[in-house]
Amino acid sequence: MTDSVVDKKAGEPEYRIEHDTMGEVRVPINALWRAQTQRAVENFPISFRGLERTQIRALGLLKGACAQVNKDLGLLAPEKADAIIAAAGEIADGLHDDQFPIDVFQTGSGTSSNMNANEVIASIAAGFNPPVTVHPNDDVNMSQSSNDTFPTATHIAATEAAVRHLIPALEILHESLAVKAKQWRTVVKSGRTHLMDAVPVTLGQEFGGYARQIEAGIERVKATLPRLGELAIGGTAVGTGLNAPDGFGAKVVEVLVAQTGIAELRTAKDSFEAQAARDGLVEASGALKTIAASLTKIANDVRWMGSGPLTGLGEIQLPDLQPGSSIMPGKVNPVLPEAVTQVAAQVIGNDAAVTVGGLSGAFELNVYIPMMARNVLESFTLLSNVSKLFATKCIDGLVANEAHLRELAESSPSIVTPLNSAIGYEEAAKVAKEALKERKTIRQTVIDRGLIGDKLSEAELDRRLDVLAMAKVKPGE
Amino acid sequence: MTDSVVDKKAGEPEYRIEHDTMGEVRVPINALWRAQTQRAVENFPISFRGLERTQIRALGLLKGACAQVNKDLGLLAPEKADAIIAAAGEIADGLHDDQFPIDVFQTGSGTSSNMNANEVIASIAAGFNPPVTVHPNDDVNMSQSSNDTFPTATHIAATEAAVRHLIPALEILHESLAVKAKQWRTVVKSGRTHLMDAVPVTLGQEFGGYARQIEAGIERVKATLPRLGELAIGGTAVGTGLNAPDGFGAKVVEVLVAQTGIAELRTAKDSFEAQAARDGLVEASGALKTIAASLTKIANDVRWMGSGPLTGLGEIQLPDLQPGSSIMPGKVNPVLPEAVTQVAAQVIGNDAAVTVGGLSGAFELNVYIPMMARNVLESFTLLSNVSKLFATKCIDGLVANEAHLRELAESSPSIVTPLNSAIGYEEAAKVAKEALKERKTIRQTVIDRGLIGDKLSEAELDRRLDVLAMAKVKPGE
Amino acid sequence: MTDSVVDKKAGEPEYRIEHDTMGEVRVPINALWRAQTQRAVENFPISFRGLERTQIRALGLLKGACAQVNKDLGLLAPEKADAIIAAAGEIADGLHDDQFPIDVFQTGSGTSSNMNANEVIASIAAGFNPPVTVHPNDDVNMSQSSNDTFPTATHIAATEAAVRHLIPALEILHESLAVKAKQWRTVVKSGRTHLMDAVPVTLGQEFGGYARQIEAGIERVKATLPRLGELAIGGTAVGTGLNAPDGFGAKVVEVLVAQTGIAELRTAKDSFEAQAARDGLVEASGALKTIAASLTKIANDVRWMGSGPLTGLGEIQLPDLQPGSSIMPGKVNPVLPEAVTQVAAQVIGNDAAVTVGGLSGAFELNVYIPMMARNVLESFTLLSNVSKLFATKCIDGLVANEAHLRELAESSPSIVTPLNSAIGYEEAAKVAKEALKERKTIRQTVIDRGLIGDKLSEAELDRRLDVLAMAKVKPGE
Amino acid sequence: MTDSVVDKKAGEPEYRIEHDTMGEVRVPINALWRAQTQRAVENFPISFRGLERTQIRALGLLKGACAQVNKDLGLLAPEKADAIIAAAGEIADGLHDDQFPIDVFQTGSGTSSNMNANEVIASIAAGFNPPVTVHPNDDVNMSQSSNDTFPTATHIAATEAAVRHLIPALEILHESLAVKAKQWRTVVKSGRTHLMDAVPVTLGQEFGGYARQIEAGIERVKATLPRLGELAIGGTAVGTGLNAPDGFGAKVVEVLVAQTGIAELRTAKDSFEAQAARDGLVEASGALKTIAASLTKIANDVRWMGSGPLTGLGEIQLPDLQPGSSIMPGKVNPVLPEAVTQVAAQVIGNDAAVTVGGLSGAFELNVYIPMMARNVLESFTLLSNVSKLFATKCIDGLVANEAHLRELAESSPSIVTPLNSAIGYEEAAKVAKEALKERKTIRQTVIDRGLIGDKLSEAELDRRLDVLAMAKVKPGE
Repeated sequence: MTDSVVDKKAGEPEYRIEHDTMGEVRVPINALWRAQTQRAVENFPISFRGLERTQIRALGLLKGACAQVNKDLGLLAPEKADAIIAAAGEIADGLHDDQFPIDVFQTGSGTSSNMNANEVIASIAAGFNPPVTVHPNDDVNMSQSSNDTFPTATHIAATEAAVRHLIPALEILHESLAVKAKQWRTVVKSGRTHLMDAVPVTLGQEFGGYARQIEAGIERVKATLPRLGELAIGGTAVGTGLNAPDGFGAKVVEVLVAQTGIAELRTAKDSFEAQAARDGLVEASGALKTIAASLTKIANDVRWMGSGPLTGLGEIQLPDLQPGSSIMPGKVNPVLPEAVTQVAAQVIGNDAAVTVGGLSGAFELNVYIPMMARNVLESFTLLSNVSKLFATKCIDGLVANEAHLRELAESSPSIVTPLNSAIGYEEAAKVAKEALKERKTIRQTVIDRGLIGDKLSEAELDRRLDVLAMAKVKPGE
Repeated sequence: MTDSVVDKKAGEPEYRIEHDTMGEVRVPINALWRAQTQRAVENFPISFRGLERTQIRALGLLKGACAQVNKDLGLLAPEKADAIIAAAGEIADGLHDDQFPIDVFQTGSGTSSNMNANEVIASIAAGFNPPVTVHPNDDVNMSQSSNDTFPTATHIAATEAAVRHLIPALEILHESLAVKAKQWRTVVKSGRTHLMDAVPVTLGQEFGGYARQIEAGIERVKATLPRLGELAIGGTAVGTGLNAPDGFGAKVVEVLVAQTGIAELRTAKDSFEAQAARDGLVEASGALKTIAASLTKIANDVRWMGSGPLTGLGEIQLPDLQPGSSIMPGKVNPVLPEAVTQVAAQVIGNDAAVTVGGLSGAFELNVYIPMMARNVLESFTLLSNVSKLFATKCIDGLVANEAHLRELAESSPSIVTPLNSAIGYEEAAKVAKEALKERKTIRQTVIDRGLIGDKLSEAELDRRLDVLAMAKVKPGE
Repeated sequence: MTDSVVDKKAGEPEYRIEHDTMGEVRVPINALWRAQTQRAVENFPISFRGLERTQIRALGLLKGACAQVNKDLGLLAPEKADAIIAAAGEIADGLHDDQFPIDVFQTGSGTSSNMNANEVIASIAAGFNPPVTVHPNDDVNMSQSSNDTFPTATHIAATEAAVRHLIPALEILHESLAVKAKQWRTVVKSGRTHLMDAVPVTLGQEFGGYARQIEAGIERVKATLPRLGELAIGGTAVGTGLNAPDGFGAKVVEVLVAQTGIAELRTAKDSFEAQAARDGLVEASGALKTIAASLTKIANDVRWMGSGPLTGLGEIQLPDLQPGSSIMPGKVNPVLPEAVTQVAAQVIGNDAAVTVGGLSGAFELNVYIPMMARNVLESFTLLSNVSKLFATKCIDGLVANEAHLRELAESSPSIVTPLNSAIGYEEAAKVAKEALKERKTIRQTVIDRGLIGDKLSEAELDRRLDVLAMAKVKPGE
Repeated sequence: MTDSVVDKKAGEPEYRIEHDTMGEVRVPINALWRAQTQRAVENFPISFRGLERTQIRALGLLKGACAQVNKDLGLLAPEKADAIIAAAGEIADGLHDDQFPIDVFQTGSGTSSNMNANEVIASIAAGFNPPVTVHPNDDVNMSQSSNDTFPTATHIAATEAAVRHLIPALEILHESLAVKAKQWRTVVKSGRTHLMDAVPVTLGQEFGGYARQIEAGIERVKATLPRLGELAIGGTAVGTGLNAPDGFGAKVVEVLVAQTGIAELRTAKDSFEAQAARDGLVEASGALKTIAASLTKIANDVRWMGSGPLTGLGEIQLPDLQPGSSIMPGKVNPVLPEAVTQVAAQVIGNDAAVTVGGLSGAFELNVYIPMMARNVLESFTLLSNVSKLFATKCIDGLVANEAHLRELAESSPSIVTPLNSAIGYEEAAKVAKEALKERKTIRQTVIDRGLIGDKLSEAELDRRLDVLAMAKVKPGE
């Protein structure tokens, strides 16, 4: 397929000529890729952004596993298989990312990128000492088709991102939040509903709620893995498995599980569904979007609590990470919560793109896969990275302004609520309104209105106005 | 087409038998609709929600205008045309909304609803004294096809909603905001960027910004009207105008403009585009979505400013509209801003649905029209109604806590900023930090640190610390 | 709270005067609702659309269960509790839907609708014989707050919709598709990837893929139930459970599970998360969106296969449901697939609205609940109804044009693929191109090119060109 | 601010120490950036993707223009101003893109990137011969704040992308489509509505509709420019313009317009709106999304028309761009339409992200700007590039299968429609059904049924069955 003809002119880039069934193509002289990759490079100068690293890695893993099975089944000569396995391993390890120059916006099957992998593996093998000649299609792509490999690589990458990156990152964030929930178990503050003063809660209760959101986020991702982990490999061109030996897909999955240790990878229940639809990505993206919503809620609460220092709520202090203003001396901003909420918006946007792709398949193939892969894999990356940063650079360093928090809790007119049964809802309302109007404490107002008596002793008043008790938290626990 | 056969049994509903080309259909005895409507009623028991009122009105307007033009061209007998015009007018006026029983989720062309209108008009005409016999297809639908009438009715309805409802409602809201901008021109407060204390602004400046957002929203809607107002009528089945006289569409539009006074209605520049694509709806929906974003920003600011009364920002008070809690006496919530932001979320959701519909057309027809119409028209209705309510029940009644606002403005550490040129950025930063740490005013801190002297007299200090001057507002204007 | 004063004037509607803590309100004389409901009716004339039926039902179920637990705990007098239970049962059963006049776009907590339920129940009880006097707040709302009841009712409604409506509907659709998959197991056709001719599949394989998509959809919904089924009840105002007895929530859930038989209902793991966040709805909506994507794929394939009858693919025939055109005689359109895809677009739009609501909570409460509930519950309803209709009115009646399908399969140039190993890839490509150019069969072209010989007998040629064998389907099974 | 201390150890990277108000920072020895940039690099390892090129360019343009105005106003020494202008020009020209290492997911104001520009400009100036010392804040950022510069740069970049890239690209695509519309004016084919056979259109009419979609897309973008082109510059920290001379913003805009030639740039009507809201981006993104919908429709039609070659519609042929399959010889896929529709899905996703950002501002600043900028600017880039490719590599090379198209047009049963007035709708329906059933032409069926006679001569029959005439196209024009 390659003619080692050098098309060199002084002062110009050097090319060699490659052939494929459509004719000659000029390829950069040192490129490991060949004709089909080059055609795609030229056809798709669109975003100037290639595949995600995690996708290239998965392609490498898959190509190696397929070669292993082809070898085990006696279809591929051992020396060829071993060369492919070695070369594919280098790709998985990131040694050749610069050899994947094709734009992510390309043919919707990812055929160009599959051929890119096939061609680069063949060239790497040819560069071994001694060289091993493997054919990109006949050997590297043996028993495969772009239509099963590219979806398979996408789901490997997404599953690995879930298991190896996002879930551990969320666990870190969960732990940070849970530590704060425990630390601040008795730090009482005014609750807020509709942003308005409500009955007391503790800061620990709030962070416990956040921790549960993240824990549920982990559950959400895990709940999608049985389908996200389904791999199309074995279906070849249209799902029938034409030109692949029976059981090929299952054997490849076995190798992949053994090599990666990712037990969630499995053979697709129905190979036609696994190639014609990409619903597993849509579902997973929906879970990521839910996590984005959770993170937005938490980050917004944190920055509102930290607002001020003097004209905001001033309940907590965030770690100072960088100067906030070139004009206003001393200003520091909640930059990590801002990164979190921007990531969340991006993940929501990515999900919309994935959804449009997901609903647009036709017959035996969905042809929006590279775009869908980009968005799902980017969402995994963004959420993983920002969750860890949010935990370590923000949540861990939060400091509560405990006195101010208690002061606010005790000033909320809503703390009159537990007096209802003693002085009546109507009188309680009058107390609340008078306290608010005259900026007095509820306690003082009750005394001023002469409500201490048989039904309500001063000791009982104090007992009922204990804001921590109202939050149903016992100090000694 | 109708046999007046009554299919009556004791205690059962009464039906009559109608025929169409597919056979017999049982129709409720008193229904004005006929066979094709009935088939659609039975085919689509999905949402149990019919067309929007504004869409039915537009169908009525259109059917009347078409009859007028058919009459003027001598194609339709005057007595038939006049009967159709009269019956269509009743439909436009909302007298027969209960005769439009078909689900909005139906055939994607809206053919069922177009036939519904044709059939009901024919039945109304048959009920006139003396009765006039008009055929649903041959007479009422003359020179028309569902493929041009249903899109046309949708764009009439949307354009009318824009011109008659949304723009006036936004003008009301704009005026309310502008009044507050003027009223509060000199009410100084602490600016907030990243939610953190910043240099001063006035409440009037903030509301002036909101007013501009709404003014721009009006511009946005108007900018879409040249294309939203394009009407497909005249294209009939596939855009060629087969079976319609030349110039039919333009004449119908003339009648519509004359009758409705809506000058923005116009003949589509390209009838194939006007039937195959529904881009005009997607564009308009995008403008509505932008307004939704504006409203969210404004409503959020308003409720945050009104948060408290004691543990929040407490900058303004919203009108009390309803009790906020059955437990907590005296609690009142910002319920209208909440309605605003929920409407905004819905409009954003509706826009996503419209977008999916808009990209999914094929060849000579987009078949997502009823769904798109529902979402666009609902968005117009929601935004129109909530904008007026927001103006009259919330913005107009806002009260500023001026003293508290000034107090906050003066406590912001950022007001040290204008001293930079007198005492230097570094010293200014020290002042800010000391003031914050010791909870002193900037003014006091400057004095305490012995900075009054040659470069900075006490009078100059006061001049520079004038928070209203910092906002670049002159009190006397 | 009610004065039975009639404010009647001749020819005008009749009102009575109701009081609440904010003063007097005029309420329609026969309305079962009272002051707070009326205020909300007047505050929110926005969409003129109330709560979903399923939400009202859930409010009724919940109010009854709470009364039962309050009675069991000795907090509420048995005769009061029994009256509430009876009245709430009537509401659950749909007898009083017209007494819920408040717009869905209202206060974001749903407080207005919670009070609506409380007031209507009190009025129903007052109408019993003998009348039972229950107070809307003190009795009907005992141990509750809008902040736990309204989310709880929403999740009850959504969980019931999932378990009772959507999953069964999807099972019906799955069965219809699975029946076709079996029926058409050996009906061979040309596969299509990128819409281009590919190697053969069977129609049964395609429908098997669709069936798997729906089966996976069922799994997706089920995977969200552990969190969607979490109920906030017991947390009252801010999650602490202030004013509710310990364990109240768990006991209410027990009653609900017993009464409804829905085992998926459970007490929230963290009551602060359960009130401050609505992530469970976002997650469930994401699953519904995935199902919408699946349905779009299937419906699109079905209508493309049915396209024609003469200028399209013409592979299958859909049942005739209604005349398709008033101009073009005999035209019938795929109206049910169109309803399916329009529903899908709506569900995707609803999901976007739900997501915006879900990320917008603050502190102890998300105040986008009525809007979120509307969208999630509508999506459940739409998908449930359209899935059943799609199964029964479309899929079940599909007829395959078997001869035409086989003819197409045999005409696909891609069927040359199995000859690669006999005549070589290069020669195979020449055969394919010649066959295409000269519009001959692959078989004839092979013969014409003189390729029958040692390597390829005519019998072997026929064996390899067996399109059903290429699909890896054995006829006799 | 910089200590030229080299922190060198053998075999380790070399750093220098920079200081800012928060202390010391280690910066790579050769980096042109300084402390604040470095802090941000370390704070935000999230996406590992920086600002868009177009955004960096706009920052350079803006910094130069500001220096010019500061010089003109006598605020900045000429030699400093000239150095800044020169350095900023290099940045605009793309000579220092590698000096912008900060992640796009950063502080939501873009302060880090604004300081990045300030620091790099200062370092470039310091490297001039002779060196010019300019201070990043006092000189480069003079009269500016991140809060006005970063939004300004974003809107410059977006406006330039619209005027210089997208509109010209759409004009190219429009021209390509218009050429085909003219070329194929009389190429008759069967219309399709609901995907079903309809009355004839010409291929030229279809492409004329596509051309109009693109023309309308250009109008849509232009309609947003009056607001997209509004620049916040001059508002500084909170919109008041504190620390900037009066009229600064207007003068900067004058310089920018003069330098870039982009007349659409203008001073914001309200500087508070211009900093607190980013509605202009949301609006523009909505227009881009509409164009995405248009492109999807066109690309889908094109690939469906090109489907086959033998089992699809086979109406046109797309240029062969690359081999489509490694298994199936000769298969070529519509890869450019696939790139188009994937770009469209991405643009729709980007729009969703922009919308979430747009609605999330608070008080004086929206802090989702870098994320919004990324998405809007990427959408511009993707649409510009793919539109040109679609025109030049796909539309321009389309070939119509004219004979097949006419054959299909004549076989559509719907061509019976013009006979209605001669033989009656009922008889026409019978003709259509018999023709379909017996696979005869309409013409033959009419003759076979003995319908030739007084009302319909054979010549008249042929005249009425002229499919081109049905499309209302005259051959000779």
